[in-house]
Amino acid sequence: MWWENEFLKVKDQKLYLGRRRADRLAGEHGTPLLVYDQRQILSNYHRLKRIFSECRPRELRICYAMKANPHRKILQTLRQKGAWVDAVSPGEVEAALRAGFPGRRILFTGTSVSEEDLHRAFGVDGLTVNIDALEQLELMKEVKKKFYRGKEIRVSVRWNPGLGRGFNPRVVTAGKRAPDGTPVKFGVEEAKVLETFEKAACFGFRPVGLHQHLGSGWTAEDYGVVRQAVERIIKMAGRVEKAGFTLDFLDFGGGFGPRYARNETVFPLQEYASHICCQVARSGLSVNALVVEPGKYLVADAGVLLLKVEYLKESYGQLFACVNSGTYTSLPRPAIYHAYHEIVNCSRLRSHNMKPVTVAGNLCETGDVFGKEIPMPVPKRGDILAVLCAGAYGRSMASTFNLRGIPREIFI
Amino acid sequence: MWWENEFLKVKDQKLYLGRRRADRLAGEHGTPLLVYDQRQILSNYHRLKRIFSECRPRELRICYAMKANPHRKILQTLRQKGAWVDAVSPGEVEAALRAGFPGRRILFTGTSVSEEDLHRAFGVDGLTVNIDALEQLELMKEVKKKFYRGKEIRVSVRWNPGLGRGFNPRVVTAGKRAPDGTPVKFGVEEAKVLETFEKAACFGFRPVGLHQHLGSGWTAEDYGVVRQAVERIIKMAGRVEKAGFTLDFLDFGGGFGPRYARNETVFPLQEYASHICCQVARSGLSVNALVVEPGKYLVADAGVLLLKVEYLKESYGQLFACVNSGTYTSLPRPAIYHAYHEIVNCSRLRSHNMKPVTVAGNLCETGDVFGKEIPMPVPKRGDILAVLCAGAYGRSMASTFNLRGIPREIFI
Repeated sequence: MWWENEFLKVKDQKLYLGRRRADRLAGEHGTPLLVYDQRQILSNYHRLKRIFSECRPRELRICYAMKANPHRKILQTLRQKGAWVDAVSPGEVEAALRAGFPGRRILFTGTSVSEEDLHRAFGVDGLTVNIDALEQLELMKEVKKKFYRGKEIRVSVRWNPGLGRGFNPRVVTAGKRAPDGTPVKFGVEEAKVLETFEKAACFGFRPVGLHQHLGSGWTAEDYGVVRQAVERIIKMAGRVEKAGFTLDFLDFGGGFGPRYARNETVFPLQEYASHICCQVARSGLSVNALVVEPGKYLVADAGVLLLKVEYLKESYGQLFACVNSGTYTSLPRPAIYHAYHEIVNCSRLRSHNMKPVTVAGNLCETGDVFGKEIPMPVPKRGDILAVLCAGAYGRSMASTFNLRGIPREIFI
Repeated sequence: MWWENEFLKVKDQKLYLGRRRADRLAGEHGTPLLVYDQRQILSNYHRLKRIFSECRPRELRICYAMKANPHRKILQTLRQKGAWVDAVSPGEVEAALRAGFPGRRILFTGTSVSEEDLHRAFGVDGLTVNIDALEQLELMKEVKKKFYRGKEIRVSVRWNPGLGRGFNPRVVTAGKRAPDGTPVKFGVEEAKVLETFEKAACFGFRPVGLHQHLGSGWTAEDYGVVRQAVERIIKMAGRVEKAGFTLDFLDFGGGFGPRYARNETVFPLQEYASHICCQVARSGLSVNALVVEPGKYLVADAGVLLLKVEYLKESYGQLFACVNSGTYTSLPRPAIYHAYHEIVNCSRLRSHNMKPVTVAGNLCETGDVFGKEIPMPVPKRGDILAVLCAGAYGRSMASTFNLRGIPREIFI
């Protein structure tokens, strides 16, 4: 199958997770169950390093966007390989520290940060605070003055290059407005970037980087805009250096992900990497490191959600596989973003009798379906379905809506 | 203001929650903070009873859709006034029991129910199990046979009348497909309703009711369809009685809510109630009770979410009030459903200088805004904003996304 990788294999029409049959794992551990594989995460990590190898002699920093999945084992695995971490709240910063990340490998990219957030972040030695707004600096100044007067605190500036791209308006994180009209709250607008650097320095912070993040879930169609945005940040970095600041790093954010659907056009990651490396090389910038912030890219296809079919239902000509978990409590993406996830029957991947089946969760909302009219062999009661690419934004977004439980997580 | 009620008052351009100034409550208890008022809930409850008073001599059962807000105090308050409860999971059933509800006042309306769900529900004496699918009955039969052989278990049938209405496709819970094309997973299709009653009886259950639920958040435009659906369920109930079943109750579900926005057309609740009562009276049905299942109607406008403005940001011509909580972690409705919530500045409701302000949460998503370009006096750092109508689907849908905390809840 097109989605097979080191984690997901097919043998005799059955799904294997590593060397274990998925349905047997479900039987052993119970369902709903989130299953992850560290090897697949590492494979994604090393592939990404190879793809960006042209950036040498500059350092490549892979800064894991841990909001995708803050499981301690995932953090530990990536930390051991030298990854950095992108944390978006003090809670994430502290989870990263608990997983052994040294402060200097943590980038704290907060938005609407509070005094308390800053107090907690500034307390971590070596951490870099990514500034989301010029106006946030007053708060930063006060917190520094009150609690961290002499301390050197590294900061970077997240700017909004005026362009953004993503698979859903909710995750287009740059530009003036998202495609649904929502004003984009993130980053410093172009006209204020230099002022932010100057003010940060004047308030006693040490500016070390420039950052942008356009959105997430790019496909081939997004490449043109993404390429343009690369040129914009390099140009802006030139202006920052010209103004007298030394940049340790340039951060291009995330955006490139795994393939969720067969018919999805694939973002040209190699071309993107080459473009970045080549443009930076030609720019004459003195930055030491290039940073990317993958979340889904590293962990999504290293996780599956196993669900049990409680019964098959037919209503008004539609077939429903009624499963024992809900989207909001395990993997909210299909409900919130109408995101597509491949779903397979673990014990019968194909048959002569494929029918469109809607995989209905156990929550009281029509939107609570893991997939709509997905062609599959008609499931039977007791069958185990696997929702693929469930390693990112599953557990991390899950709630206890309807007072339903959140699935267990295991590693094979 | 149009939204003033027994809970929310305005004096000298300041918001009061009951007799307390909202900004002072925030100062005392910290923010983010969810504040609820039992008196407003009771006021909504008694109003609803009055609106449906025409249904006498039949009993009116107000069956609280506790998924809106399962806070124990809310459950206790409503239980003391004689309300029933609509629970959608065993977790909710058990929370209702802990709040003192007797089993006979609990309706368990599950979907994609599991053996374990049924086992937990059947164990509660007097509880009514609302059957969502003919195909679910096999599971029910087995669980009964295994664990509850001689026990009388009351059941009702949730049918899908082929029509649905709601404020968002995700919450249109009847009809063949939701407006966005999603096949509707809920209820028994028309052709199978009698068979479901017959099979339930044959398997030793005691059928006592017929139920439908069209969706939620109706406005005036929905009334035509809703009216039609009332006629459909009454007709179906006639067929059920004719087939020899005695119905204790007819359940019309929820759907009518509070007003969230000034410009929203108001669903004609009195007309709806009269229509139901009159049609049932004329039908000759022998049902003892009429049931409605309000969730938002009872609790939404009895709650507010208080947020602190950490700083004001301007970017590309847009103003952002950057607040110390996120939608997904406190009130996901604006992010998930693009639902509108009135937002006011607690200490300055109006001024000469009203500007469109986007209230930006502290989560790493562009969709994480409580309100887009809401006209308000330009907020200052430290101001307290109140998101109104936050009593329903706030805490109950909240997650710890971005490892951010969920707000405290207090009652005034």
